[in-house]
Order: sequence, then structure tokens, then C-alpha cells
Amino acid sequence: MKLKNDIKIAMCQMMIADDKSINLEKAEKALHKASLQGCDIAILPEMFNCPYDNKFFHEHAEEYPGQTTKMLSDAAKKEGIYIIGGSIPEKKDKNYFNASFSFDREGLLLGIHRKIHLFDINIKGKIQFSESKTFTPGKEITAFDTEFCTTGVAICYDMRFPELIRSMSLLGAKIIFVPAAFNMITGPAHWHITNRCRALDNQVYFVSVSPARNEKSKYIAYGHSMVTDPWGQTVVEADEKESIIFASISMDYIEKIREELPLLKHRRPDIYVEK
Amino acid sequence: MKLKNDIKIAMCQMMIADDKSINLEKAEKALHKASLQGCDIAILPEMFNCPYDNKFFHEHAEEYPGQTTKMLSDAAKKEGIYIIGGSIPEKKDKNYFNASFSFDREGLLLGIHRKIHLFDINIKGKIQFSESKTFTPGKEITAFDTEFCTTGVAICYDMRFPELIRSMSLLGAKIIFVPAAFNMITGPAHWHITNRCRALDNQVYFVSVSPARNEKSKYIAYGHSMVTDPWGQTVVEADEKESIIFASISMDYIEKIREELPLLKHRRPDIYVEK
Repeated sequence: MKLKNDIKIAMCQMMIADDKSINLEKAEKALHKASLQGCDIAILPEMFNCPYDNKFFHEHAEEYPGQTTKMLSDAAKKEGIYIIGGSIPEKKDKNYFNASFSFDREGLLLGIHRKIHLFDINIKGKIQFSESKTFTPGKEITAFDTEFCTTGVAICYDMRFPELIRSMSLLGAKIIFVPAAFNMITGPAHWHITNRCRALDNQVYFVSVSPARNEKSKYIAYGHSMVTDPWGQTVVEADEKESIIFASISMDYIEKIREELPLLKHRRPDIYVEK
Repeated sequence: MKLKNDIKIAMCQMMIADDKSINLEKAEKALHKASLQGCDIAILPEMFNCPYDNKFFHEHAEEYPGQTTKMLSDAAKKEGIYIIGGSIPEKKDKNYFNASFSFDREGLLLGIHRKIHLFDINIKGKIQFSESKTFTPGKEITAFDTEFCTTGVAICYDMRFPELIRSMSLLGAKIIFVPAAFNMITGPAHWHITNRCRALDNQVYFVSVSPARNEKSKYIAYGHSMVTDPWGQTVVEADEKESIIFASISMDYIEKIREELPLLKHRRPDIYVEK
């Protein structure tokens, strides 16, 4: 089968409410709107069914399959689109994960990414967060096949680690989706350079989707969902407000860049120190 | 011995002539000027004794010790400063390398970095270069101790590879020096994001020094020598013209950033795919 070359991606930069059912209803509507515009793949933000706050994670968590993942699967099938389901708090046995569930056009589960690198930072007088108070870290890199190409999923702080994004690229991923909620300190300082450099270094499309900025929430997301191309250039970028933005991306362009600037071919894994 | 915390770095963004002796004289003067300003470490650009052009590399090449490395060693001793000697074409046995020689305040050789990743690109209608026509790739990561910290050296295209810069960081490097000549295509597109993201990801000072822009040369260097701090912010940046720019950097600031945003501690080498 010839893989499809041109792909339309929809990024749903949702404003997140405290109430889970409100979030699910809003996500479902956003996915429907995205589908009406003819997208192939729609992506939701990190923690799209729950405020990004340790005090909400247990209460909003669910096991798979559950209310949220059923909505995602049903929407994927009904709309006939791929869905990268942002992330939600997942309960599994006695553990909780920050987890992303992806579905194909038939509503079948493609993969679950459980956030590997938990966000434990303490920038004095500016921002403190400790995901590890609630969550257990995931242990697996997530890359699955789609009708377009191999596709990777990471969550937010995961994208800080060049090794993880490189790993996904080495596993064949050519589009990497990252539901992510940077904040008003790390966002302005690091969001654009990290998005752009990961896309450039790995010669992939890098698609990151944030919640909309809610000035009233305890943790204020930066917004600025964006798609970066394999030459490191921004294809499209949201502002901080609630919106759905679209990008058309091309698999041929990846091959062109990889031929002209053969970074992946020029790697020297015989030389690098890894631990 | 207590390591020195505050370090003054001088970046000599030289205009390169065809004639080797003119370049050596200019470099020696620049190092003297830098020293008069009280710098601890001075750094020269990639190919500071030779135009960046395959047709000049053999003719300007020398074995170690040779005319250029003697000048560098003598200048380091005379001025009492560390010198990261940009790079030059080195002849060694039957091979040629793009090599960087570093010297301490006594003029003693600290390390030789031989460019590992050769610059072979062909961006159609824009820029084509093939270093591998002349050079043999180096095989070793370069990190050596100074009175400040462990210090790494890479050359230009080497900085495109996150694994190499991470390797240097894992070997303990807290300042990474990169003599580099990006061009008028890759410079505007990639120079700033790559410099900033490497510093940020590895929580190091990243110091890159370019030749000044010579519109008459076959390969036109981008310029914009710069220092980026471990938070990913630009400390100082040159324009495209010939100049010496200075930056004061602090080892304490590295420790502050690493404590607040513990990226290196949060790595998961048990999970990454490396080859």
C-alpha cells in the first residue's frame, strides 16, 4: 500500500475546566469541529479531562477502558479520524500514570504512552511542581504505525530529553506528537527552542499541543500549540487562547530534508557515551 | 584547590584571509587584545588559519607541533591565558583532520579535538560542501580538565548531534567550546536554536565562535559568535563583522539551574534506544 503523503493535522488547544464531564463534552465537540475541516489526525492537550494539579489527579483518574477513553474511541470511529488523546490521569492496578491513549479511524487503540519523565521542578520563587507525588513513571517508548508513517507520542517534560525523541526517531517515527503544558516560566524561556530543535535534530514533524491559558488556574499553561517541520521552522502556532489550529504536512518534505542534510545518516553511535 | 567560579571568556571572530601567515599574525594580535581585557580563556574560530574551502586545506595543513600550534602555545604562555585554538587543517601520517588544539596558561597542550562529524551536505541550489573529500573523521570525544571545570571541545557540524554534546556533558563538561562556521543558509535557519537548545538540554555554557562574514569568499560564514547559558538564554552575541566579544560566566549559576530543573538527574538511560 502506498502511504499517504499529505496529512492534515488538527490541534485542539482546549481551555480545561475543573469538571471532568465538561471537559469531555468540550473535547468531543472540538474533535467533531476538527473533523468537519477534513483533518486526518486530531490531537488534544496534556490533561485535557482534568486540571493540571495534584489535588485533581486521583479524582479524575480512570482505568482503561473508561469514560474518557470510550469517548475518544467512539469519536475516532464516528469521525473516521486518528485521535492522539492528549493525556489523562490513568489508574492501573494501584498506580496512577499521566497517560496518552491513541486511536485509529476505526476507534481501535493504537498505543498508550505513559509519561516517562515526571515533572519535578522547583524554580525558586517562580514555579514548583512535583508530579511524582501522584504519578508513577512509564517505562516504555511509544511508537506505532499509522497509514502515514510510524508515529511517536511523548508527554510534556518527556520532550526535554533529547535521547527520548532521538529514540523515537530511530524507531522510525516521522511525526512526533506531544501533548504538553509548559507554564509561564518555562514556556517563554524554552518552548520554542525545544520544539524547533527536536524537529530539526531528528528531521521529523514535531506536533505539540497545550491547554489554552487559564489565568485563574493554579498552574497556568503557556498555550502556543505548534507544529515544527524537519527543517526546524514553525509551520503553525496558536496564541494563548482556546482554538483549533490546523497544519498540512508532507512526508515527501521529510525525505527531501534527510537527503540534503543527512543528519541521521551521519550519526556516530560507535563514539557516543550514553550513561 | 577551590575552583574559580567566575570566568571571563573572549571570542575572537576573525576575518580569515587566504594567506596563512596573515591569519596567524591576526590571531596572535587578537589573543593579545583579548588578554589585555583580562580574559581567562580565549577562543578562535573554525579554520582560523585557512579559508574554509577544500582547495586550501592541504596547502595550509601542518603536523603537530607546527607553525600554528607553536604560535598558540607561545601566546597562551606569554599572555597567561587558556586558548581554545579554533581549528586548523592538521596533517597526521597520511591523513588530514579538521582539528582543534587547546592550551593552558603555561602553553601546555590540553587536548586535540578532531572533528568527528564531517560536513557533507547538498541543499539543492543553495549550498553544497563535502569535507570528506579532504578530511578523515576523528574518533574521540574531547573533554579535559581546567582550573574552572571539565571543558569540552567540538567543531561546527559536531554540534548538530545531540548525542555528542550530551556525551561531553556526561563526561563532566560544564563549558563546551565550539569553533564553527555555519553559512548563510544554515546559519539563519539553525544557528540560534541549536546553540540555545544544546546549552539548555545539557545545562552547560555553550560557546561557539565563527569567522567573521566575508562576502567575497566561496563559503560565506554566518558570524554571530555567541555564548548561551544553562537556562538557554543568550549571554552575548556578535553580529557578522570582525570583532572580539566577551562574556563573564559563573559556575555557580550552572549548579543553581541544575538544582531547580534537574534534567540531568531525571534522565532514563535504562529506556532510551541508542543505535
